[in-house]
Amino acid sequence: MNREPLLMIPGPTNLPHAVREALGQPSIYHRDSEFAQLLDVCTEGLKPLFGTDSDVLILTSSSTGAMEAGVVNFLSPGDRVIAISSGKFGERLGEIAATFGAQVSWLTVEPGRAATPEVLTALAADRKPDAVLLVQNETSTGVCQDVAALAEVANSHGALVIVDAVSSLGGIPFEMDDWSVDVVIAGSQKALMLPPGLGFVAVSERAWQAVESAQMPRFYFDLQEAKKSARKGQTPYTPNVNMMVALAEVVALIQAEGLPNVYRRHHQMGEAARAAVQALDLALFADPQYASDVVTAVESPEGLDSTNLVKHIRDEHNILVSGGQGDLKGKIFRLGHLGCAGLTEMRRTIQAVASSLADLGYQCTVEAALDAIEEVAANA
Amino acid sequence: MNREPLLMIPGPTNLPHAVREALGQPSIYHRDSEFAQLLDVCTEGLKPLFGTDSDVLILTSSSTGAMEAGVVNFLSPGDRVIAISSGKFGERLGEIAATFGAQVSWLTVEPGRAATPEVLTALAADRKPDAVLLVQNETSTGVCQDVAALAEVANSHGALVIVDAVSSLGGIPFEMDDWSVDVVIAGSQKALMLPPGLGFVAVSERAWQAVESAQMPRFYFDLQEAKKSARKGQTPYTPNVNMMVALAEVVALIQAEGLPNVYRRHHQMGEAARAAVQALDLALFADPQYASDVVTAVESPEGLDSTNLVKHIRDEHNILVSGGQGDLKGKIFRLGHLGCAGLTEMRRTIQAVASSLADLGYQCTVEAALDAIEEVAANA
Repeated sequence: MNREPLLMIPGPTNLPHAVREALGQPSIYHRDSEFAQLLDVCTEGLKPLFGTDSDVLILTSSSTGAMEAGVVNFLSPGDRVIAISSGKFGERLGEIAATFGAQVSWLTVEPGRAATPEVLTALAADRKPDAVLLVQNETSTGVCQDVAALAEVANSHGALVIVDAVSSLGGIPFEMDDWSVDVVIAGSQKALMLPPGLGFVAVSERAWQAVESAQMPRFYFDLQEAKKSARKGQTPYTPNVNMMVALAEVVALIQAEGLPNVYRRHHQMGEAARAAVQALDLALFADPQYASDVVTAVESPEGLDSTNLVKHIRDEHNILVSGGQGDLKGKIFRLGHLGCAGLTEMRRTIQAVASSLADLGYQCTVEAALDAIEEVAANA
Repeated sequence: MNREPLLMIPGPTNLPHAVREALGQPSIYHRDSEFAQLLDVCTEGLKPLFGTDSDVLILTSSSTGAMEAGVVNFLSPGDRVIAISSGKFGERLGEIAATFGAQVSWLTVEPGRAATPEVLTALAADRKPDAVLLVQNETSTGVCQDVAALAEVANSHGALVIVDAVSSLGGIPFEMDDWSVDVVIAGSQKALMLPPGLGFVAVSERAWQAVESAQMPRFYFDLQEAKKSARKGQTPYTPNVNMMVALAEVVALIQAEGLPNVYRRHHQMGEAARAAVQALDLALFADPQYASDVVTAVESPEGLDSTNLVKHIRDEHNILVSGGQGDLKGKIFRLGHLGCAGLTEMRRTIQAVASSLADLGYQCTVEAALDAIEEVAANA
């Protein structure tokens, strides 16, 4: 068996060779001109992924730290906020806002479904929010929300739009400027093919104006300080320089593949996953209208605890897939298909799922699933 | 010229080979049993460095993030705090406390000197602090404060003692339990021989009690959440797993060398740096009574801007040393001698300093400086 497991979870993801090499280089000095160039390459290289000409700031933290930065720099205690809860991750921005004193109204959608502009319109008319918080890709259910449509509603109420794009950025298109989104948060360990440890926040002009009056306290995550330092080619505090050297490699890899091709590859992976899973007679958990191209949630067959299936796939095939979280524990399993992965990895994963189902007493025909993948490949 | 510069700055430091290899491994899954074992190895391995049997928590952030965690979990807005300002880094804990609403009284010491228990006693009697904040090793001036003596004063007033040991932990002894220190903060990129990107916070029993009533808001840096997750072998948010695999290598390296030997090596490096610099007819900046064993600040000769010297050493010798910060810019230069470095690196550095001084028109005798290092080596 291959010593290195194949990661088909929604992060951390498989690391390209160039990234692994870069991570192991000697640390560079973060107050040197070499670092200033590196920061510029990383920042400029990320902007097309956000679809913005505005500022992108790089933080040394998990994505949740970047989410905190995306909230506390723009809001004040007492602000009225609508948080769209589409699952475990959609809740986090709202939880952060509440922790720092915002008045949070929840727009809770059924697991596996997305928020609609209609429901948001109704709630916004009632609550007159200062900000609307949402996630683009809800990793816990495999749902991708329509950020453009939801942002339009929020904008019509003059609310700031703060979006968690942690698990989607670089895998699913994001057009921050076109969609009038104010704050977008992302992380390193998803489609960006890096280990966890860097967070990213893109900030619109309107959001920079909001910073001036925002009263939530911040120090480590103070984005004005980050912006001020960035102008000098620095970060306010010692950054993870090795991760940033690796990020520059990722920028080069994405540029070489071409961002439209990167998105096409992810879309194809999403199509292949959905087709293959259905060919195995398994049910997709997410509303097909909002199916995510980076993570597919699958209902476990009647009588089978998905935790056992996930364990079997790991133990027998050295492939990591994810189970369900919270109320969905045992009921679904999730395939992550983002970052450094393609149809080869998808075929191997689907074979492992089918073989494991058979081992656990659930009959299924792997041939139909592999045929379904080939059909997606042929239509690319 | 060697492509890889020698880092003789106070962080980031030189990475051991085992660390570089570990950083470049495929990412592991942070919700897996393999991670639980790793977290345990790292946590237990760090405790002797803190000198504690209490909890050590690992955060994915720069050290400043860990400093924020070390403040906001234990204090409330309005709390009376004495912050000992011994220089740029000593100020940071106090700035964080003030940002989150504490009433901060500053005990400011002259650059190059340390706070004395007498001065703290007088101020504490007047201010009746809830907490005293200080740095062990002030990187900006090369001063190592007497944490034990200062903590004793703070304890006698029932104040929490919160210490920034970022640039000293693992290089200079720390005895958290013996000294009755409540919160100790450290980072990865100093004596711990890792890139920047992990922060560490050790928490005493008394500090855990203080958490219960502490009202400063925290989410990403919530240490109760970190403790709760650690009991399950996890972290609340996706950690930098590659850095933690490398941290386990560092723990093994320190155990193999033996912690007392690690401290002895750093002390020897400090002695060698001070002796060599004086043999070059340069003046030490820090009060000799409080000289740091991990960073030596040196006054630039009359008429020489230290920025030029630092640049010359980098350009001609591929060795990075640091200049002065703030008011000390141009006036001092600083040699970092911590982590993965020994007398071989010190000799090379002193030769580069001497040769660069000569190039810039300042006569000095390198032989005397090298002899001084040999004398320190012989007395080990």
